[in-house]
Amino acid sequence: MKHFFSINQLTNQEIYRIIQNAWKYKKENATVSKQLFAANLFFEPSTRTKMSFIVAERKLGLEVLDFHADSSSLKKGESLYDTVKTFESIGANVAIIRHESDDWINELASGINIPIINAGAGKKEHPTQCLLDLLTIYEEFGTFKNLNIVIVGDIIHSRVAKSNAHALRRLGANVYLSAAPGFEDDSLDFPYVSIDEATQICDVVMLLRIQHERHTENNQHVKYLEQFGLTKERKNKMKKNAIILHPAPINRGVEIDNDLVECDQSRIFKQMNNGVYVRMALLTHVLQEWGIIDENLVKERYSIVG
Amino acid sequence: MKHFFSINQLTNQEIYRIIQNAWKYKKENATVSKQLFAANLFFEPSTRTKMSFIVAERKLGLEVLDFHADSSSLKKGESLYDTVKTFESIGANVAIIRHESDDWINELASGINIPIINAGAGKKEHPTQCLLDLLTIYEEFGTFKNLNIVIVGDIIHSRVAKSNAHALRRLGANVYLSAAPGFEDDSLDFPYVSIDEATQICDVVMLLRIQHERHTENNQHVKYLEQFGLTKERKNKMKKNAIILHPAPINRGVEIDNDLVECDQSRIFKQMNNGVYVRMALLTHVLQEWGIIDENLVKERYSIVG
Amino acid sequence: MKHFFSINQLTNQEIYRIIQNAWKYKKENATVSKQLFAANLFFEPSTRTKMSFIVAERKLGLEVLDFHADSSSLKKGESLYDTVKTFESIGANVAIIRHESDDWINELASGINIPIINAGAGKKEHPTQCLLDLLTIYEEFGTFKNLNIVIVGDIIHSRVAKSNAHALRRLGANVYLSAAPGFEDDSLDFPYVSIDEATQICDVVMLLRIQHERHTENNQHVKYLEQFGLTKERKNKMKKNAIILHPAPINRGVEIDNDLVECDQSRIFKQMNNGVYVRMALLTHVLQEWGIIDENLVKERYSIVG
Repeated sequence: MKHFFSINQLTNQEIYRIIQNAWKYKKENATVSKQLFAANLFFEPSTRTKMSFIVAERKLGLEVLDFHADSSSLKKGESLYDTVKTFESIGANVAIIRHESDDWINELASGINIPIINAGAGKKEHPTQCLLDLLTIYEEFGTFKNLNIVIVGDIIHSRVAKSNAHALRRLGANVYLSAAPGFEDDSLDFPYVSIDEATQICDVVMLLRIQHERHTENNQHVKYLEQFGLTKERKNKMKKNAIILHPAPINRGVEIDNDLVECDQSRIFKQMNNGVYVRMALLTHVLQEWGIIDENLVKERYSIVG
Repeated sequence: MKHFFSINQLTNQEIYRIIQNAWKYKKENATVSKQLFAANLFFEPSTRTKMSFIVAERKLGLEVLDFHADSSSLKKGESLYDTVKTFESIGANVAIIRHESDDWINELASGINIPIINAGAGKKEHPTQCLLDLLTIYEEFGTFKNLNIVIVGDIIHSRVAKSNAHALRRLGANVYLSAAPGFEDDSLDFPYVSIDEATQICDVVMLLRIQHERHTENNQHVKYLEQFGLTKERKNKMKKNAIILHPAPINRGVEIDNDLVECDQSRIFKQMNNGVYVRMALLTHVLQEWGIIDENLVKERYSIVG
Repeated sequence: MKHFFSINQLTNQEIYRIIQNAWKYKKENATVSKQLFAANLFFEPSTRTKMSFIVAERKLGLEVLDFHADSSSLKKGESLYDTVKTFESIGANVAIIRHESDDWINELASGINIPIINAGAGKKEHPTQCLLDLLTIYEEFGTFKNLNIVIVGDIIHSRVAKSNAHALRRLGANVYLSAAPGFEDDSLDFPYVSIDEATQICDVVMLLRIQHERHTENNQHVKYLEQFGLTKERKNKMKKNAIILHPAPINRGVEIDNDLVECDQSRIFKQMNNGVYVRMALLTHVLQEWGIIDENLVKERYSIVG
């Protein structure tokens, strides 16, 4: 693996190893002592993903370089490539990048000699969100095989939907999509179901955010919850051991009833918690693959699955 | 104490303990080793309070999570509650919050399971500024009993005035207010005096900032200093051991003559210095109350008053 | 040395010592344990200089206070002096400052009791860029004596040109300037040469950035490269052991052909790497001069040249 851009770069075996290592990190608490620098370059707003990476980095003992696009040389027209190359030059050992472009990785594919981790690419990929969803599902059911998982909402604009759908199918789940008119994505070859059907058959309801900031026709949010979202009525028809996921930020009262966000079957805030550990495991995976940290050290310290 | 919002939540005994612990921190220099995370969420501009908390956190050995509203999911409409809940989920052990709303704590009162410390709430409360003012006064006079303390300036818009007036009275001081027309606060039951009277009787002149950013009728700043501020003439009539305080940022030449900011009786920059130690003491107090840090460890390391 | 503002404050001997210490830092890797705080106050955009200082500070074991002008009390009208005095008061041991004013140091010259390091002053001085350029040249040639060095581009708007020209002459180099009409600086007493002449005679081509953000007549960028920039043709006429420098950010295709940025004779990204070590050496130099760190400790840990 050169850079980590897509969940598709990981084999099923690698996904399981990362999930299991995340689990280990969750049980323990220690840091790697050698001074390494992680550069976090977020060109789009982020609370969860960025802060979660920072916590993961600090728990691993990495030094954090916190890039702010607004006060950087981007203001002078510096390119993404030159920005990342700068971080490589000043000693960053890994770069975590979120950018609004779908294909920013192409600009960096050659020439950059430190690992890059995709923290969100336009409407295309968000593989660390996928990994934390996988951990949350696996922690709940112990398997992906034959689980009915429905991804609900603004599919076409969602990088989370795309990263998750293929990975979940590959791991053996039955993946369905459910979307309001205009939110379908014809490029995804998965069966569509209605929200009513979805909530009754599924083991996992994976809600997506209506992305206010990506399109402007806001009047369709009126009655959206009633027609296409997770209401209390629909929640009551879910299987009793089914769980509710959402990558957040949540539009309370739009894609999900306000009172369901922290209900007994919701794992929304647990997902955020899992995000830290899965990012620790991913960072370890990537730094090991590049030979930046010593595998024996990590194994010894964390009893990580090799 | 659930969250730390108001100075009124502390008993006089607790205030004295925090002041004494701040004093201890000021004399020593060490850090707590266990990895804990402090999240600093400032939704209003801040230099002093925010940086002072960061220094306090680092001196205690806490990891710092530095939230920037402008590049966060607030931009996507995420609520304050969901933002703070996110920090709790990813592992923050304490959240330090400043927000323009007077009553933001209400939104967080239930549902958040980590301690919250108020670093400024609209025009209502600024209890850590109060604590550092208390430390500065106590360090000077060794008591609050029977001190004449006048709070001067934009009382109605000042959260500092409200936090300080009640706490100082409770600790035995005689508190007076002095304000230009339109700056009085009728809800505060304290005697008003003129600035000339104030400077002659007082042991402590506590100046407030004219809050340019909160109201727009700027023409009243013309001649404000001469009529209502601390001029050199008024300073010369102060008791020789009386001190001048100001929470800053200072409008030099408006509420105080430029040359008095660093004069012999000013403690303005000493207040800032004290802010670090009082916040260390408060953080320790809160983390101990929540059982997040071990009391014995802190006592042993810092000989802190139990 | 009170504050570090200009390269002219350093004797040749001090410059050589800093360069040699930077070299040592480059070979080793360790941190100073005593908790000291460095405040980075950047009032102008920066990627390289700011991040490079942060890496240098962390490598030396300094705690980093990261000031963001946009979310600070500057928004409430606080002065530069009061801002820096605040950092001194809360415990910063050194302040690193970049500001658009040419003469901001004057406002801070008296009254501030911690060392200040200039990380960029308007169009006037950028001494740490100068130091890293010196290190890069010295590493290449082992001397400055009789090297032909040409500074090419937007001389009049460049703080890099001014810092470098005098320092290089003082160290024995033959310094030439090359500028498009309107970019000359009459205050600099150095011979001007054409870009064609420059590239043929020089050992070092030091390119400058066309500062889009400082002036608006952008149409002169059309054909700029061909007339005044480093084209492939001109590069091919350079001495084989001559090197290309650029402080970055680079306008690719304007002052330099896109393909030359990472060519065999370019040291542009090496300059960035050297920036970390030269800033470590400068920080050590300044903190020692002020008695903030112990000379013996540093010598012992890093075998630094005394």
